Amino acid sequence: MGGLLHYEDFPAGEVVTYGAYEVTAEEIIGFAAEFDPQPFHLDEEAGRASILGGLCASGWHVCAMLNRMNVDAYLVRSAGMGSFGLEEVKWLRPVFVGDTLSIRRSTVERRISARRPEMGIVKFHWQVLNQDHELKLDARGFNLFKVRGRG
Amino acid sequence: MGGLLHYEDFPAGEVVTYGAYEVTAEEIIGFAAEFDPQPFHLDEEAGRASILGGLCASGWHVCAMLNRMNVDAYLVRSAGMGSFGLEEVKWLRPVFVGDTLSIRRSTVERRISARRPEMGIVKFHWQVLNQDHELKLDARGFNLFKVRGRG
Repeated sequence: MGGLLHYEDFPAGEVVTYGAYEVTAEEIIGFAAEFDPQPFHLDEEAGRASILGGLCASGWHVCAMLNRMNVDAYLVRSAGMGSFGLEEVKWLRPVFVGDTLSIRRSTVERRISARRPEMGIVKFHWQVLNQDHELKLDARGFNLFKVRGRG
Repeated sequence: MGGLLHYEDFPAGEVVTYGAYEVTAEEIIGFAAEFDPQPFHLDEEAGRASILGGLCASGWHVCAMLNRMNVDAYLVRSAGMGSFGLEEVKWLRPVFVGDTLSIRRSTVERRISARRPEMGIVKFHWQVLNQDHELKLDARGFNLFKVRGRG
């Protein structure tokens, strides 16, 4: 466990960037068919005809992409204890085919649980940007990590 | 467009229930492999060994299931204008293989956009429950709908 990231490894105020998620038409359509079957997520033509202006990813799909980048960047090598939720999600701009997404993560605040002193609660602010630094999604939420040396 | 659900069709205070989403191991593992590759979402054995007590769905996957039920119940037959986001998501209990999920949706409040009088903003409270009425996920967020007769 010693080599895993713990609560102590996420200091408040830290800002890090990571990820290079390439968004494809196949993936947009595949996710939408399963979880968000609305025309502008399923069909190029319908996307162009909509106010969104092109085939674009479901907002929930963009959340899932954010999570995948978080897993790869830190969750998979952390002494994680899951999450109890999100404080806010803003879908600011549509994510289109050809976008390459990355994350800018800030640690907003953190504290050790009063009831469970082995558990640290870290509040992150995640921003999802594309290759042109357009801000696509803005979210705030929590990850739980073990406190080092407390089991 | 007349037959589609508009802003007027979502009165504040309304409570409706819908959905019967059967959660399978195949779908849990498939979603996790793509978007949340952590052991307790990928493997029965690892799930049992974790604090979650069994193979359980990614919290983001449960959000996607919620959306699918929302699309089927009302979004697909609405004059929808998308969403700008969520106010809160709470992952309260793990969702396991064999759970059948349904939604209890309450309309918290609504208003017509001051800047865009053709657009209505509806704030919903969605609760995801299983067949034993266990509350699994609690979320508050927005859907946008056209106002009837305003284009």
